[in-house]
Amino acid sequence: MGGSLEAIKCIMTRKSVRKYSGKEVSAKQLKTILECAMQAPSAVNEQPWEFVVVKDKALLEKLSKATLYSGMVKSSSVAIVVCMNEKKENMWAKKFYGGGFAVQDCSAAAQNILLSANAQGLGGVWVGAYPSEKIVSTIRELFEMPKHVIPLCIIPIGYPKEKPNAEKRYKEERVHKDKW
Amino acid sequence: MGGSLEAIKCIMTRKSVRKYSGKEVSAKQLKTILECAMQAPSAVNEQPWEFVVVKDKALLEKLSKATLYSGMVKSSSVAIVVCMNEKKENMWAKKFYGGGFAVQDCSAAAQNILLSANAQGLGGVWVGAYPSEKIVSTIRELFEMPKHVIPLCIIPIGYPKEKPNAEKRYKEERVHKDKW
Repeated sequence: MGGSLEAIKCIMTRKSVRKYSGKEVSAKQLKTILECAMQAPSAVNEQPWEFVVVKDKALLEKLSKATLYSGMVKSSSVAIVVCMNEKKENMWAKKFYGGGFAVQDCSAAAQNILLSANAQGLGGVWVGAYPSEKIVSTIRELFEMPKHVIPLCIIPIGYPKEKPNAEKRYKEERVHKDKW
Repeated sequence: MGGSLEAIKCIMTRKSVRKYSGKEVSAKQLKTILECAMQAPSAVNEQPWEFVVVKDKALLEKLSKATLYSGMVKSSSVAIVVCMNEKKENMWAKKFYGGGFAVQDCSAAAQNILLSANAQGLGGVWVGAYPSEKIVSTIRELFEMPKHVIPLCIIPIGYPKEKPNAEKRYKEERVHKDKW
């Protein structure tokens, strides 16, 4: 197994990074990040994700205006738009559960992106798109995505300009032992 | 930052573990897992999560019957029910976005649970609860949770009985460069 306290350190030191140095993320680093994204668990292993990798400066500029909180995208080296592909979602989940698991599956993939960036000395931030219909349609138009593809979030990545310490968020009162 | 290729290894080797050796997860290991869970990112840092830690054998037995896919829970050392607390979700998200981000936030926490288990030589599996109304209400009744608390998933954890290799899931066709 992947037993290593270095992995715990990576999880504990991950912090949203919104300012980037300008140094480029390498193709190798990006490939590692995408491999980690796709290694996430998913309901019945359906892997309902798609990734739009944005490096074009003009597109990064446009993408930075897609939400009120995505201004930093234009100064990132690369941005990954994590998307849910509804055609990849098995129908059993919708039939038996009244809804699918793509949000959960793709969120696990997004977290792997942030952690694998941190592990490589890079930083990123999870900028929410879904469930805002407005933001979803703005991003869809920008990339001419079909209707069955739903952008979940935008993750700009780059070398951190600052290295802020991650404060510990553990709260004992959020842990309930054997009962609520 | 938490730069380490050991962390990449932890992400790449994480695999759903459904059979456990019976050896107990220690209090220290569990604390590390919960610290990692709460270190996840969340929309405007609202941290809308709660964790029910189940060790009582009779409760694990009952919880194992909450879904069609949770049979392994009864043989786990501990199970964590990851929950969304609707009262911790800021109203701005619902007002401006037409919905909150608790599913995404708590999914990131769930992924940290699985990774921090793997990092410590343990294994677990993400058993979906939400969005099934039936499963959500079954779990809520079992733990007498209030209505504003929504169980997202159950994660049984233990020492792996088997150590299966994680197959690489990377698919080039899921990567779209600068356009759909």
